[in-house]
Amino acid sequence: MASGWFYLSCLLLGSLGSMCILFTIYWMQYWRDGFAWNGSIYMFNWHPVLMVAGMVVFYGGASLVYRLPQSWVGPRLPWKLLHAALHLMAFILTVVGLVAVFTFHNHGGIANLYSLHSWLGITAVFLFACQWCLGFAVFLLPWASMWLRSLLKPIHVFFGAAILSLSIASVISGINEKLFFSLKNTTRPYNSLPSEAVFANSTGMLVVAFGLLVLYILLASSWKRPEPGILTSRQPLLHDGE
Amino acid sequence: MASGWFYLSCLLLGSLGSMCILFTIYWMQYWRDGFAWNGSIYMFNWHPVLMVAGMVVFYGGASLVYRLPQSWVGPRLPWKLLHAALHLMAFILTVVGLVAVFTFHNHGGIANLYSLHSWLGITAVFLFACQWCLGFAVFLLPWASMWLRSLLKPIHVFFGAAILSLSIASVISGINEKLFFSLKNTTRPYNSLPSEAVFANSTGMLVVAFGLLVLYILLASSWKRPEPGILTSRQPLLHDGE
Repeated sequence: MASGWFYLSCLLLGSLGSMCILFTIYWMQYWRDGFAWNGSIYMFNWHPVLMVAGMVVFYGGASLVYRLPQSWVGPRLPWKLLHAALHLMAFILTVVGLVAVFTFHNHGGIANLYSLHSWLGITAVFLFACQWCLGFAVFLLPWASMWLRSLLKPIHVFFGAAILSLSIASVISGINEKLFFSLKNTTRPYNSLPSEAVFANSTGMLVVAFGLLVLYILLASSWKRPEPGILTSRQPLLHDGE
Repeated sequence: MASGWFYLSCLLLGSLGSMCILFTIYWMQYWRDGFAWNGSIYMFNWHPVLMVAGMVVFYGGASLVYRLPQSWVGPRLPWKLLHAALHLMAFILTVVGLVAVFTFHNHGGIANLYSLHSWLGITAVFLFACQWCLGFAVFLLPWASMWLRSLLKPIHVFFGAAILSLSIASVISGINEKLFFSLKNTTRPYNSLPSEAVFANSTGMLVVAFGLLVLYILLASSWKRPEPGILTSRQPLLHDGE
């Protein structure tokens, strides 16, 4: 029963995540005239798509690897590698998304990193990089003791959730800011709620729903791996840290 | 030792929370010419102050009542009443903060509820109202069974944290939006990072730091009330739900 709800949540999560990415692409394609990689505003358009895909959807999915019941039995290393590899993919998408906006700014003589959106976003990316490197060093490389892993695991899980929360706040402020930029000096400004504004606002709300669902699956105790002692002795899988 | 860290965290939390409110007041007083209650832009200035105070600082503090070790022993009812009363104070501040912005908009013929900031913010306030009413009905009124309370408690805790996350995203997008509004058509626009922008961006980052610290104290397992069976039998306090 619990497992059924878990897979239903995963299905909902996959649908929401796909919609977040597809809606952002559609917004940029239909209302903002699509994509290019030449320093123009069309290069900027990659920024929202790649940040939503990298810092929210791929990041969120990658965070949940250890909530799959399959990861609770058998060797741990393949699941750790999957967790790290998916997060690395998320990070690469994020970096390309940052290249898109910095190149657009530099090409057009626009200042970098002045808005609160950018301050928070770059903080989230910096914390993500630290989290990945520390996670790789402590949980994947073989040197760390079980004591150190046990000590760092709750901190790793907390910062994982915290970085996702910061990313969502960055995405919300970014969509809000982009709509104020794009929909000024038009016959239908943002405050008249043209169809682009309704669509992009809805995309932002979808991102929030996706993020909350990830946090629910991550933190809902019934879907966590059982602690040592709860499993039977036939399953000797909990001999090391996360 | 754990208790020492807990109180140190509370001290940091109190300092950060006070700074969030005082910095927002200072921003509005020094750069935005202070406060009034007459439908003008000076009435709007109450909005950021009251939302930061209500939806973030008071809400965050009220959430942590059950993390105080004193609440783990003796009768539960006074702590439940304190939890509910502090949240009610937070909600009242929030509603007054909404009255400030709606009155300003209506007075000046400005549309309400068009930006993503407002969509997310009003969603957070609506969820807060539902959470308070459901919490009052189930955990304070005497009719609910222990089974129902146990079932709803993790959902109550999760939504408590989720609403705080939504509030922080709303505050960040709100500060960002306000700075774009206020610092256009000036000799030193937002993108030149005048002192107001640095100050208000820093206030936003403080709000994020405060929110993350609340979530850490709320979710860090070592500071949760011990489950039944861990306490000695001399402490018959865990006979009902949260």
